[in-house]
Amino acid sequence: MTDHCFSATDIDEMEPRYRANLVNSVSGFKSASVVGTSQGRSYLENLAIVSSVVHVGAHPPLIGMVMRPHTVVRDTLHNIKTTGCYTLNQVHCDWTKQAHQTSARYPTEVSEFRATGLTPWYSKTFDAPFVNESPLKLAMKVESILPITANNTEFVIGRIHQVWINKEKISEQGQVDLSELGIACISGLDTYHKPERVARFAYAKP
Amino acid sequence: MTDHCFSATDIDEMEPRYRANLVNSVSGFKSASVVGTSQGRSYLENLAIVSSVVHVGAHPPLIGMVMRPHTVVRDTLHNIKTTGCYTLNQVHCDWTKQAHQTSARYPTEVSEFRATGLTPWYSKTFDAPFVNESPLKLAMKVESILPITANNTEFVIGRIHQVWINKEKISEQGQVDLSELGIACISGLDTYHKPERVARFAYAKP
Repeated sequence: MTDHCFSATDIDEMEPRYRANLVNSVSGFKSASVVGTSQGRSYLENLAIVSSVVHVGAHPPLIGMVMRPHTVVRDTLHNIKTTGCYTLNQVHCDWTKQAHQTSARYPTEVSEFRATGLTPWYSKTFDAPFVNESPLKLAMKVESILPITANNTEFVIGRIHQVWINKEKISEQGQVDLSELGIACISGLDTYHKPERVARFAYAKP
Repeated sequence: MTDHCFSATDIDEMEPRYRANLVNSVSGFKSASVVGTSQGRSYLENLAIVSSVVHVGAHPPLIGMVMRPHTVVRDTLHNIKTTGCYTLNQVHCDWTKQAHQTSARYPTEVSEFRATGLTPWYSKTFDAPFVNESPLKLAMKVESILPITANNTEFVIGRIHQVWINKEKISEQGQVDLSELGIACISGLDTYHKPERVARFAYAKP
């Protein structure tokens, strides 16, 4: 093996931006979701891209995401805690630029929907705004928030309340064809990818 | 919008396998990592695929993963708790079949390395086994384990101790080209994808 080894000390001594890029890359490809919130129905709406969304369980249907209270998601996290609800909208390859732009530090009174041109849409039965352009939208209700003391972040666990999707993209067994829906994924902090399916395997047995 | 809406009740009433496939799909694309552990250096080695790896922070460099104590990762989780160390190895598109096969319920005394043909490799300074075939390997030490009471799972947070990688695939700014390394990602429980880069954006400003 001729690969290079970066030690813990090497990482600790890196220039901060280099370290942020490297460490954000090495966990592998990440989902690309924009989180929709508001201070209440028809109030100011916030939109923020997150790449830290992770499956927690299917029954009950739970999804987690790691959030940094002191970064640009501050307003989003405040809205989630205040209202208990939010939406997760998968990013389509055609509007990765707008999705990425939601990571800018806009003033609190600016809606990232308006700033980026993405369109808020409401279901009749849920108070947080969805992204109309998204091919796969989830209505989420907060289940619990776990503090991660190691770096002062929070693990927000939500329960899926609604799934909005084109039924034709779901197989008879329930698999969703994310590639055919045009959904993107992320590497690092700034790079977007279009995944192409290479294999599907049966349930593995010894 | 003509998409279908699945409600919380619809999800609750789904046939279990259909629900598992659907809910595992809707969080978006997931990283594909195999976790290497052992009961001690040169003892029985375990290997398990996980798709729940998530970036937690860059400084200190932390990565989390959701694990189910009562599933096939039971032995892996036991080893992690006993030894405090494990490896995360990104899955290459050429051996997704072997990686997926590690999810089979082998008896405790069987090494998934041997069962799947993947090769254990040790660094001189770390006790858990890496996967030699992986183009991006991390040595991890347990930082903390948070219980997720909502569904009886655990959020294992580890600190990066070593990164093994071909330096030529890292940009001057620290971004790793995961596509060029041939790394795969996952959708749902069983589908593997090869991501192709579509865009990189500058740090977003208002």
